[in-house]
Amino acid sequence: MKTYIISIGDELLIGQVVNTNASWIAEQLNSSGYKTKQILTIPDCKKSINETFQNLAGTAQLVIITGGLGPTKDDITKNVICEFLNCGLVFNQDVFDTIKTMFHHRNIEISETNRTQAEVPSLCKILQNENGTAPGLWFEKNNTVFVALPGVPFEMKALITDKVLPEIIKVFPPKFIVQKIIHICGIPESNLSDMLKSWEKKLKEAGLQLAYLPQPGIIRLRISYEGEKNESINGTIDNLITELGQIIPDNIFGYGQDTIESVVGELLAERGLTLSAAESCTGGKIASMITSVPGSSQYFRGSVVAYANDVKIKLLNVTSARISKHGAVSQEVVEEMATGALHLFHTDYAISTSGISGPDGGTPEKPVGTAWIAIASLQGVASAKYTFGNIRDININKTAVVALCMLRKAILNLPDIRFRT
Amino acid sequence: MKTYIISIGDELLIGQVVNTNASWIAEQLNSSGYKTKQILTIPDCKKSINETFQNLAGTAQLVIITGGLGPTKDDITKNVICEFLNCGLVFNQDVFDTIKTMFHHRNIEISETNRTQAEVPSLCKILQNENGTAPGLWFEKNNTVFVALPGVPFEMKALITDKVLPEIIKVFPPKFIVQKIIHICGIPESNLSDMLKSWEKKLKEAGLQLAYLPQPGIIRLRISYEGEKNESINGTIDNLITELGQIIPDNIFGYGQDTIESVVGELLAERGLTLSAAESCTGGKIASMITSVPGSSQYFRGSVVAYANDVKIKLLNVTSARISKHGAVSQEVVEEMATGALHLFHTDYAISTSGISGPDGGTPEKPVGTAWIAIASLQGVASAKYTFGNIRDININKTAVVALCMLRKAILNLPDIRFRT
Repeated sequence: MKTYIISIGDELLIGQVVNTNASWIAEQLNSSGYKTKQILTIPDCKKSINETFQNLAGTAQLVIITGGLGPTKDDITKNVICEFLNCGLVFNQDVFDTIKTMFHHRNIEISETNRTQAEVPSLCKILQNENGTAPGLWFEKNNTVFVALPGVPFEMKALITDKVLPEIIKVFPPKFIVQKIIHICGIPESNLSDMLKSWEKKLKEAGLQLAYLPQPGIIRLRISYEGEKNESINGTIDNLITELGQIIPDNIFGYGQDTIESVVGELLAERGLTLSAAESCTGGKIASMITSVPGSSQYFRGSVVAYANDVKIKLLNVTSARISKHGAVSQEVVEEMATGALHLFHTDYAISTSGISGPDGGTPEKPVGTAWIAIASLQGVASAKYTFGNIRDININKTAVVALCMLRKAILNLPDIRFRT
Repeated sequence: MKTYIISIGDELLIGQVVNTNASWIAEQLNSSGYKTKQILTIPDCKKSINETFQNLAGTAQLVIITGGLGPTKDDITKNVICEFLNCGLVFNQDVFDTIKTMFHHRNIEISETNRTQAEVPSLCKILQNENGTAPGLWFEKNNTVFVALPGVPFEMKALITDKVLPEIIKVFPPKFIVQKIIHICGIPESNLSDMLKSWEKKLKEAGLQLAYLPQPGIIRLRISYEGEKNESINGTIDNLITELGQIIPDNIFGYGQDTIESVVGELLAERGLTLSAAESCTGGKIASMITSVPGSSQYFRGSVVAYANDVKIKLLNVTSARISKHGAVSQEVVEEMATGALHLFHTDYAISTSGISGPDGGTPEKPVGTAWIAIASLQGVASAKYTFGNIRDININKTAVVALCMLRKAILNLPDIRFRT
């Protein structure tokens, strides 16, 4: 099926706004079984819009259009559609009623001039927009279905989800598609791909596709099936995921929409455990990730961001002599920081970091990118050293993610975390 | 001038990756005076790539292509270019030497099979890529200039900045373009637009354009000029910015690439002042923003993320009775938190937050989105209450940004911050 997405907007063509609408729509279409053939970004210009419509009518089967329907640009797209369909504008009472209801909720008086906003091309089917004044417009020419939507993301998303996709699925019965995402930590991408060679072969034999989607400190694997309806495919995928779990038993931390901070949060919450942190090089990033999860106050008690050495000494009880002897970026200090936070906050676990994020501060022995991470619990303390790269924000992010991955392993008592008392 | 950007990649058409490359290139082209007419996103498919090239040859003047040159996809684009130009692949010693040097730096042995990576279409001009194995390719057909670049962002960006833009500027002398960005805090967008009505009129009369670019808690204004070469335009813009400073004397906090965290950092550093924080609802976000700035250890001593009430009491010396009487989200408590951090960390300024980020925890009197912010200094303590919206991460971001804006005003002794002892 030939599906196109058209994004209308000058702001996209000067790089002022990144085109997240198009990727969101492409993702929705893809997970419903429709592949996008092309995404076209064009300016707010009658001639360009009309030309693009003319080129696609009869060629494409489905064209999703966003933008150019905002309050100030209303007339451009509506007029182009009228010209393209050779029809006029008509007043639509339902659209007017929807606008009136919305204005009423916001306590704004609706004037008679607002009536023009309820004028729509007579040959369009209307998709009511409950979140804005511009309705979605569904129209057809030369066997091509066009759907024009406002560009405001939350209006567009509600229309796609509630109105457009259900209608598309009726008109173009989709291919059968299944996707599962698996989140993995603690194995570099190249090693993982070596470990999974024979497993990948089995995936292929089962008619499945695999994609590696790396993120800082984490790899996501996406298994997907696309083709004839296949009742047993979910079972096949689940069996393969079980096999994957046998190959890398300790490294799968989540599925689908999970994040490392949500997974760690759930592990703590369901065990009734508490957490604190002592952050040097991550500078609050770990606390910020943990508290981004709704309900985190249930298990997260607090953190000390100890940027200055005397803060490490005073609040976290780090020994001054150790800092002098080993430096703040050392196993000795990071372990004392974790133990210090454990006692300061009276928590079951504490996580600590100390490193050199850059761009300055590196030495030949401790180059920029060096990071020590420690986890303390009542069992003792465990620590590990990592060497990341040269870019400050990536070093901070990786240290935070890897620290949360270590914490997960500690909570689950996995063998590669060894606490020493 | 007709400029097109072509983004090649299946990952863009299934919504797995947002097309940030295209907006970055569009922005670079725009600020050098070239408007992008269309952005086309197409799949990793010989036929699509060839068709797109054919359609644009003779129509466009400049076509920038990214993607489809990665190690596994190398042959597709190179072969399409050979077919399109009717030429063969030739071995290029310079490209091979560049690859060898790069492998040498990474301590990887280069094999003879790597020689194929140095084979390039014979009719292309080579743009050496110092950051990867695929060079940029510059070729022409029917008076259209095509530039094919690898899709890896940092490789592409270095090539555009160092090789492609300087060459484009030679071949297509650009329009005269000037842009200035002004960062403003503390005024809602609609109020600002009312205050600037007559100033905006003067901008228009001077042939200048203005765009409002809102971000959480901040508004950026972009003044731009595009047209005939005009030696006096920089002076005109500077005068208008001076006038703007008279209309909103306390609210302009930066220009160009400035951020509120970099500006606050500079203010502290140049005065030799120190900062600490006590964060409840922002959960480490403020510390994380401050420490994202290189060199922040010079002025930032640390932060307590006090998520649990007894942490507020124990570490920040908040009075237990005040929490019981007023609740943790109150003026009384947030002020004690700031004063507590000031004393705990021995800093010149301390910043504190306490609020309800949501989605749960709201009450009729203190709905989700309520945030108290305080600043303490040796002069005393100042605080303010804000009511943001319903979305957790936006509430956290806005509270952090607005808190840093308050701190800036406090450091500058601006009149709307009143310290009480």
